Amino acid sequence: MTPEPLEGWLAARRSEVDAALARLLPDRGVPERLAEAMRYSVLAGGKRLRPMLVLAAAEAVGVRSGLDQRQVHTVALPAACAIELIHTYSLVHDDLPAMDNDTLRRGRPTAHVAYGEGTAILSGDALLAEAFILLARDPQPSEVRPWLDEPELSRRKLQAITLVAEAAGAAGMVGGQAIDLAAAEPGAAPLDERSLGEMHARKTGALLRASALVGGVLAGGTPDMLSAIGTYGAQLGLAFQIVDDILDVEGASAVLGKTAGKDAAAGKPTYPALLGLDESRRRADTCVGEALEALRSAALEGQLPAIARWVVARTH
Amino acid sequence: MTPEPLEGWLAARRSEVDAALARLLPDRGVPERLAEAMRYSVLAGGKRLRPMLVLAAAEAVGVRSGLDQRQVHTVALPAACAIELIHTYSLVHDDLPAMDNDTLRRGRPTAHVAYGEGTAILSGDALLAEAFILLARDPQPSEVRPWLDEPELSRRKLQAITLVAEAAGAAGMVGGQAIDLAAAEPGAAPLDERSLGEMHARKTGALLRASALVGGVLAGGTPDMLSAIGTYGAQLGLAFQIVDDILDVEGASAVLGKTAGKDAAAGKPTYPALLGLDESRRRADTCVGEALEALRSAALEGQLPAIARWVVARTH
Repeated sequence: MTPEPLEGWLAARRSEVDAALARLLPDRGVPERLAEAMRYSVLAGGKRLRPMLVLAAAEAVGVRSGLDQRQVHTVALPAACAIELIHTYSLVHDDLPAMDNDTLRRGRPTAHVAYGEGTAILSGDALLAEAFILLARDPQPSEVRPWLDEPELSRRKLQAITLVAEAAGAAGMVGGQAIDLAAAEPGAAPLDERSLGEMHARKTGALLRASALVGGVLAGGTPDMLSAIGTYGAQLGLAFQIVDDILDVEGASAVLGKTAGKDAAAGKPTYPALLGLDESRRRADTCVGEALEALRSAALEGQLPAIARWVVARTH
Repeated sequence: MTPEPLEGWLAARRSEVDAALARLLPDRGVPERLAEAMRYSVLAGGKRLRPMLVLAAAEAVGVRSGLDQRQVHTVALPAACAIELIHTYSLVHDDLPAMDNDTLRRGRPTAHVAYGEGTAILSGDALLAEAFILLARDPQPSEVRPWLDEPELSRRKLQAITLVAEAAGAAGMVGGQAIDLAAAEPGAAPLDERSLGEMHARKTGALLRASALVGGVLAGGTPDMLSAIGTYGAQLGLAFQIVDDILDVEGASAVLGKTAGKDAAAGKPTYPALLGLDESRRRADTCVGEALEALRSAALEGQLPAIARWVVARTH
């Protein structure tokens, strides 16, 4: 079956995710300024790539395990939102003066510029905790009965929580940021291609990979499917980062919504700086090829292939 | 049955918790400086009050549901460690220059003084994520078979994760710190007794209450038992904070291991400042009385009563 065109699918799914995020962000019982800072960062827009991966992987697996699209979204939408909260928290903390010291994000002042450093740190902390509330709580057993029983739902949720927490933590995203931070210190040795790849695999790749995996887990993927989705996610993560580096070199601030050329200016290693632009583009294409091959090997279809192609073709 | 004396129980449980923390903190695959910063803060010692509450509540409930002490610890020790990681992360972030700007903690330089602000922020982030790995992953079903089946273990774990994430998040601990931060701003109106209570109920009380509750949940507590444990935890949390304020006024830095008199000097509201020392002590005693009454009403015993008495009697 030919899937619907990616553009329409993305637009529809983004609306759902944005609406769910706005609904799920806490306000009752949360100090006003903190709640406002959380909303400011989460509802600033963005590609919502991670939620799209959660939902696309859940759909691809769901088709195979006999779920309809509504059921797939019931079981996977909370996790899609949770991972976007974690992504947002990481941006808020990475932008801090003690880290990347960025003042512009998604075309607006960064959280610490808008709300002060203390509130920015706290809003990031709160988003991380909130993500785990969502992952543990939603969907509730009554929402997925009778097509998914409680023991199986609980088992999948716990697997999803473990995957997300590992991807977000010291061996994943936070570890990647720590390597990045150390590499930017005065006098630090520049990262070679291997170290650069390892840094990105943690900083960006781990959560992208976990996004696809969590979608697959929640929709009931078999070990074979999950293994293919893991490869897909890892390759897509690397392609994403290479393209991000290319865009940082080529792009303009207005299109990116963040300060362009900043990585190069900060002396941060990038793929174009290490490999040149042409070879960087070739590498990104190779990654996408391997991502697609993994999907084929497990007979997974739907929007995942188109999302991988979109990631390398995007201009911002 | 008369429980063993608190002092010996605390010493034995603390050794177990300290050993488990040292074992469970990640090192493989974690950038060295980040791993070191995490260990520096977590293994600095401390009362381990939250893990003690988890274990004491689990024991009190476990006796009633027919578990022996080894079984109770198998099911509750990972959560006890997870909550200590969350407590430690909150200290690391609260000490930051953008927050309380503290330089001394548990008698040693704070994390950002020792490792720099960026690494301190990241180490806190990583500890929070690590806590959820522990809560979701451990104990594994094979460790609790045949006395606890997997569906029931999963159900309890998810309830524990929800409780902990809510207590740690925007409506709990982070929210309390946000109120504290706002109250310390130049020109902010001083908190009255009600607002002070609300701030502490979130900042300290929520996680203390969640600690006791999570122990009760993991050991299989009935709704009645959990309701009593919730009241116990909330009252103990308030008593703890009142005593903390009293110690801040009376104590010396050497005994406290942190800068004494700092709250008063920073113009932060305290119970002794609002109510006087004598009335503050009376309030703390009243809280303990209500905590003990709640336990009696649900026929819960073990170390919980002694821990409540210890919290008000402590000198540091």
